Amino acid sequence: MTRRLIEDRIAPKLRNDLLNPLDDSATLELPAGRVCFTTDSYVVQPLVFPGGDIGKLAVCGTVNDLAVMGARPVALSLALIIEEGLSLEVLERLLESLAETAREAGVPIATGDTKVVERGRGDGLIVNTAGIGVLGDSVQLGLSRISPGDAIIVTGRIAEHGLAVMSVREGLEFETSLMSDAAPLNGLAQAILGAGADVKFMRDPTRGGLAGVMADLAEATGFSIEARESDIPLSRVCLHTAEMLGLYPLTVANEGKIVVVVSESDAEKALAAMKVHRYGQHAAIIGRVTDRAPALAELVTRAGGRRIVQRPYGEELPRIC
Amino acid sequence: MTRRLIEDRIAPKLRNDLLNPLDDSATLELPAGRVCFTTDSYVVQPLVFPGGDIGKLAVCGTVNDLAVMGARPVALSLALIIEEGLSLEVLERLLESLAETAREAGVPIATGDTKVVERGRGDGLIVNTAGIGVLGDSVQLGLSRISPGDAIIVTGRIAEHGLAVMSVREGLEFETSLMSDAAPLNGLAQAILGAGADVKFMRDPTRGGLAGVMADLAEATGFSIEARESDIPLSRVCLHTAEMLGLYPLTVANEGKIVVVVSESDAEKALAAMKVHRYGQHAAIIGRVTDRAPALAELVTRAGGRRIVQRPYGEELPRIC
Repeated sequence: MTRRLIEDRIAPKLRNDLLNPLDDSATLELPAGRVCFTTDSYVVQPLVFPGGDIGKLAVCGTVNDLAVMGARPVALSLALIIEEGLSLEVLERLLESLAETAREAGVPIATGDTKVVERGRGDGLIVNTAGIGVLGDSVQLGLSRISPGDAIIVTGRIAEHGLAVMSVREGLEFETSLMSDAAPLNGLAQAILGAGADVKFMRDPTRGGLAGVMADLAEATGFSIEARESDIPLSRVCLHTAEMLGLYPLTVANEGKIVVVVSESDAEKALAAMKVHRYGQHAAIIGRVTDRAPALAELVTRAGGRRIVQRPYGEELPRIC
Repeated sequence: MTRRLIEDRIAPKLRNDLLNPLDDSATLELPAGRVCFTTDSYVVQPLVFPGGDIGKLAVCGTVNDLAVMGARPVALSLALIIEEGLSLEVLERLLESLAETAREAGVPIATGDTKVVERGRGDGLIVNTAGIGVLGDSVQLGLSRISPGDAIIVTGRIAEHGLAVMSVREGLEFETSLMSDAAPLNGLAQAILGAGADVKFMRDPTRGGLAGVMADLAEATGFSIEARESDIPLSRVCLHTAEMLGLYPLTVANEGKIVVVVSESDAEKALAAMKVHRYGQHAAIIGRVTDRAPALAELVTRAGGRRIVQRPYGEELPRIC
């Protein structure tokens, strides 16, 4: 039955030259050089939410993990863990969304696996994707390249994914027009890298949000990371929804944004490259790296005060991506 | 807490030059050419069984999927989906086993992901691995290369994995000395390919067993596949356990065997290369490809009769790998 499910329902939705349901693995041709390899599992509930679903998320998450390394994604694997009882209509809808997102990203689902687990043992549907990306010789990104003075840019409005998912969970979806920002960002990342700016580091602020990335940067570099609250792009509807839900937007997950660290003198050039891209229209320079001791992530508030930005934990980190 | 779990408990067990818990993905150097890519999820219960556990299985399964393509595994990803309540001692034991198997296979866990799901939503532990393998220019394997007269070899005694797991489930483990055959087969596969024999196809007979591979071969090639029951390596303890459990050994899963199709004239040469390898001591030529119509998988029984070998389904396919 799993075999028929795969041959009749799953494989046809994902069809491409690499995927062969009869083979144990896919074969691809790669140029010599550096390759990035990543994996992520997706356990979001509900499976479908405003602006996306677990299928779209499973492609965006892995494509974006490669994109922020500076790599061009060339193949994804797809592992489905289906709980008995999941409706075939829902499964097909999620696969269509997944396939459409993979097409937009320009990356084939090269190989896959499907397991069906007994009712009550799975979570409706768990999706895992792994991805391979090719890293061009000219790309030189790394935490060690970050230094005081560097500018910090975020490619758009924050907190949209997490708030969209949480608003459904809390029954608020009809009161807001909030949509997840889930999007494949390999095109945007390549545009940023191709702008002629000295880009030093990129990271997608998913679980843990912008706050998590800021705290990670301060800890890993030994420099302070300073952001100005008034410069962080945030829509009015997100601000209000976050207030209703008691969440702090900086800690809320994004699935369609990149935090970029770039040399101070090239910040405007990088920003301009983002703003002409579909997924970078609301990009903004939000802060900078400083040598202020001790090394902390800090927010300069609208009122002019300073607040330490901490890595969120526990209740602040709902399982949404 | 997941972060601390990863940094304190998981990453130290898997430590290697590629794995960096702070990076979204691993970077590796590959030669130009063909690369194989595969993924598999593991949902076995019990998590630990005679001769192995889900950690060992998750490495062997993916390494072997690459090995039978003729590829040399160069990196694995590891995605853990942990159910709240799984004991840390069990998790650590499984990770140690996983790391030890990866060391034996000579392949690093290059990148990983850990998700913790609420109690009752997971299955204790679900493991997904994906793998990348490098395929040498000289390797030319494929179903299309198979022709009548080719010999069919199995690299050892069948049915050991499935019977070991099922005997625990049925409370029979103290009555038999049965052990799973789970083993990383990349060394054996390279030995077979290096023997100077015209090897045409390899497949690991996991879920669905030898019967599944024979049925697949007949369907995909359009030729008949004939095996002699008396030549199929099967231990006495497996035969008896299968009888007790009401299972047919040909349909039972293996995790340490390869079915090899090789040109008739090179069969003895390939067999000799297997027999000197640790995991190929009990290898045997079990049958051949014929142009007998219609194209069927058939077993020549000990009594001299012929029986059609069908792909197993439903109850014959317990969820064990």
